[in-house]
Amino acid sequence: MTFTVKEIADVIGGIVDGNPDAVITKFSKIEEGEEGGLSFLSNVKYTPHIYTTKATAVLVSTDFVPTNPVHATLIRIEEPYVAFAKLMAFYNQKKNKTGISKHAAIAENTVWGKDIYIGDFVSIAEDVVLGDNVKIYPHCYIGEGVRIGNNTVLNPGVKIHHGCVIGNDCTIHAGAIIGADGFGFAPQKDNQYLKIPQLGNVVIEDNVDIGAQTCIDRSTLGSTIIRKGVKLCNFIQIAHNCEIGENTVMAAQCGVSGSTKIGKNCVFGGQVGVNWHLTVGNNVQVGAQSAISNNVKENATLLGTPAFKASDCIKSYAIFKFLPRYVARIEELETKLKELEKSKE
Amino acid sequence: MTFTVKEIADVIGGIVDGNPDAVITKFSKIEEGEEGGLSFLSNVKYTPHIYTTKATAVLVSTDFVPTNPVHATLIRIEEPYVAFAKLMAFYNQKKNKTGISKHAAIAENTVWGKDIYIGDFVSIAEDVVLGDNVKIYPHCYIGEGVRIGNNTVLNPGVKIHHGCVIGNDCTIHAGAIIGADGFGFAPQKDNQYLKIPQLGNVVIEDNVDIGAQTCIDRSTLGSTIIRKGVKLCNFIQIAHNCEIGENTVMAAQCGVSGSTKIGKNCVFGGQVGVNWHLTVGNNVQVGAQSAISNNVKENATLLGTPAFKASDCIKSYAIFKFLPRYVARIEELETKLKELEKSKE
Amino acid sequence: MTFTVKEIADVIGGIVDGNPDAVITKFSKIEEGEEGGLSFLSNVKYTPHIYTTKATAVLVSTDFVPTNPVHATLIRIEEPYVAFAKLMAFYNQKKNKTGISKHAAIAENTVWGKDIYIGDFVSIAEDVVLGDNVKIYPHCYIGEGVRIGNNTVLNPGVKIHHGCVIGNDCTIHAGAIIGADGFGFAPQKDNQYLKIPQLGNVVIEDNVDIGAQTCIDRSTLGSTIIRKGVKLCNFIQIAHNCEIGENTVMAAQCGVSGSTKIGKNCVFGGQVGVNWHLTVGNNVQVGAQSAISNNVKENATLLGTPAFKASDCIKSYAIFKFLPRYVARIEELETKLKELEKSKE
Repeated sequence: MTFTVKEIADVIGGIVDGNPDAVITKFSKIEEGEEGGLSFLSNVKYTPHIYTTKATAVLVSTDFVPTNPVHATLIRIEEPYVAFAKLMAFYNQKKNKTGISKHAAIAENTVWGKDIYIGDFVSIAEDVVLGDNVKIYPHCYIGEGVRIGNNTVLNPGVKIHHGCVIGNDCTIHAGAIIGADGFGFAPQKDNQYLKIPQLGNVVIEDNVDIGAQTCIDRSTLGSTIIRKGVKLCNFIQIAHNCEIGENTVMAAQCGVSGSTKIGKNCVFGGQVGVNWHLTVGNNVQVGAQSAISNNVKENATLLGTPAFKASDCIKSYAIFKFLPRYVARIEELETKLKELEKSKE
Repeated sequence: MTFTVKEIADVIGGIVDGNPDAVITKFSKIEEGEEGGLSFLSNVKYTPHIYTTKATAVLVSTDFVPTNPVHATLIRIEEPYVAFAKLMAFYNQKKNKTGISKHAAIAENTVWGKDIYIGDFVSIAEDVVLGDNVKIYPHCYIGEGVRIGNNTVLNPGVKIHHGCVIGNDCTIHAGAIIGADGFGFAPQKDNQYLKIPQLGNVVIEDNVDIGAQTCIDRSTLGSTIIRKGVKLCNFIQIAHNCEIGENTVMAAQCGVSGSTKIGKNCVFGGQVGVNWHLTVGNNVQVGAQSAISNNVKENATLLGTPAFKASDCIKSYAIFKFLPRYVARIEELETKLKELEKSKE
Repeated sequence: MTFTVKEIADVIGGIVDGNPDAVITKFSKIEEGEEGGLSFLSNVKYTPHIYTTKATAVLVSTDFVPTNPVHATLIRIEEPYVAFAKLMAFYNQKKNKTGISKHAAIAENTVWGKDIYIGDFVSIAEDVVLGDNVKIYPHCYIGEGVRIGNNTVLNPGVKIHHGCVIGNDCTIHAGAIIGADGFGFAPQKDNQYLKIPQLGNVVIEDNVDIGAQTCIDRSTLGSTIIRKGVKLCNFIQIAHNCEIGENTVMAAQCGVSGSTKIGKNCVFGGQVGVNWHLTVGNNVQVGAQSAISNNVKENATLLGTPAFKASDCIKSYAIFKFLPRYVARIEELETKLKELEKSKE
């Protein structure tokens, strides 16, 4: 990779502020920038690094105003992080891995499109249909009747149980498990539990990313549904009969209990839990480690265990941290009041 | 599947309230019921759907009293959810999958019973004994000396480490790991840690369900024990030397630290944590995201981080949500008291 | 295993307090000690068992003073748990498993050292270098260009993505995933997300233990780094661009968000969450289920969601548990004050 700053600026539509002929040979972090490196500044926490970075050029927003001298050449652009990502993606275009490992076990009636890759020790059961350009890395399992759309990638060790449907342009990371039985048991009078058969499936729409180890359980009846554009990080538990709305994002280790429906464009911090049979509206934001125990209206911002309005939770918590002081004030009031009462007698 | 309502009612011992000749062709959710569908009503949250469902028939409890006209035929039965589950299980009886994949790697001295299934790329080490009707799906690993009882199912990618013992009628879901080393390290004076060998095993009794990805670590000495009838959901961590009592149920993402003993018939919500070297009595209920930090007596119902009596925790939390109001009341008291004191001078 | 108490004491440098000729044939837990068993006493919670144990001998600390008669022979030593661990490790030395399964799929240009073991269905991509005495159990995946140091063990089902580097003397437990893509997405104006390519890798230094199922994501640029001596339990999420300092220990189900740097010698309880772009100093202790939301100075001991000084959090929580009582005191103050005011009129 060797480009001038001007060449890069032209590709992404940025404005050069500095030396347009400086040569870029690699991507680098702003805090570790090296000669020839291209960095970006997006999160304000990293602003101090722009004055000390050794990167040759830095993508910054159009309205960035330095408060100190900057040695790097700046490329001004509306969304520097997005532009940087696009540059990385352009540079990183993977070799189009194709072919079928001789170590794979593929049922005879499997149907697939062009440019497919099937890695070592992949096991594909009967009646599976794979689209064009599907990439299946080693140790994946594809159960009976599974359908996978075009351009979808299954990383090593992914298990897709029978009857599940995966859309186009999805990425499922290593170890994820799609369509294991939902956790359905009916308590019996003798304290034992009766297993409820899980006859449904999982449907994952287009352009979904599923993190490593994440589990999406099959429904009892019908489908557990992950709508298009959803991004789930690692270790997420989506229980049976759930629906996760379009473009909703969850950080690692969240858990959604059975039959809960989450809206579109929601953002969940890590380790959030959601109770079952709930409805969470669109555009809801939930702070890390919160617990959603009731239905949530759209546009809400929640925090706490159980969660309530985040701004209120922050106020309550600010007091919680100093509860002993408030108790001392109560005690002082009690003492003074006693004195007043005494003096009255 | 084509039955009349009367035929179904007769099988499960229910009473028809409506058209006994209506024809049932499928199972369906009450909120999405279709012509020919059989649904059930158990959770009261779903009661409104019975007045609008398009399902042909609905299993309801014997004492259900409609408050509006119901179009579906009702089948009255004591436990509609259990009856529905039994019908699904009856209908869902899987083809008895048997046979051994030519792609499996099985040690020569493996012993197995009748009607066994061993899938692609299963690896079985020396000295393993498998009972009748055991089903081992692709990519499972069975370590040296493992014993597995009759009718037990290992879903794809399950790993059972050496020396572990699994009972009859168990289901272990995809990716679960049984018998990895417990997390035992002794701190040294130079800040490094010395690994404590984990010489024990895991014993899982009969009729246990282990969720996808769940880990049960081998003990240091003796056994980590999962008693009969236990139901663990996905992503649960059971550390070394633990014992989980009969018919105890845990929702997803719970973690139990080392050497803790949990009683019978307990119910844990999701994401609960339990400290180490504790004893939790029988019939204990723990709310989601709670942290158990002390021994717990039987029949307790706990909530909070750390957990205490749930009803008390709910009361404290109700106040927590409005702490700023209580602080305002303290401030008002202080102002008024100051005025009183002044007026006294 | 048959030794006299004196022989064992001589090996570890302990002092016999009792019968030096008693015969030891096995290790046993102090609470379940058997004739011929050797146990240890370290955690004071277990002290009562020393007066009832049936173990033949017990390792105790040099300053242990019994308060009741003890039947077992004591072996006094400075660190009984460490000595016990060393005895177990000595006794447990595994047969040096070597050889390459005929069921493995290994790229032709793979380089390896002596005494290597590669199990069934291991898949090794191009340009991999494995040190001496590396043990790779069944179903592991080793991506392009991975380097693994001497004496490192990968348990069944571990997945190491391309370009990652693992040091010497590491143990990676079953199902762990090293180097999956970090969770990097840039929000777009149409509510969709743009994937940020993850071009970096994961570097794991020497003497690191990684628990079962644990995920360490590859960095966007540069490396996600796990420093030497780190011990991570099961189900831990280490996000992209993180660094975990030397000899830091985390209990199960912790999650560290992206670009956070944790210091040396820290100890995290289970289910702790850490926000992104933070710096946590050396020697920090964090209680289970806490959430770190800000930078943390070295030597801090934290607790709570969000976490603050543990001793303060404990005080606040002690009040939280009885908040209704404090509210009652406020109400009583209000009543009395009103009476006083009235009497003044």
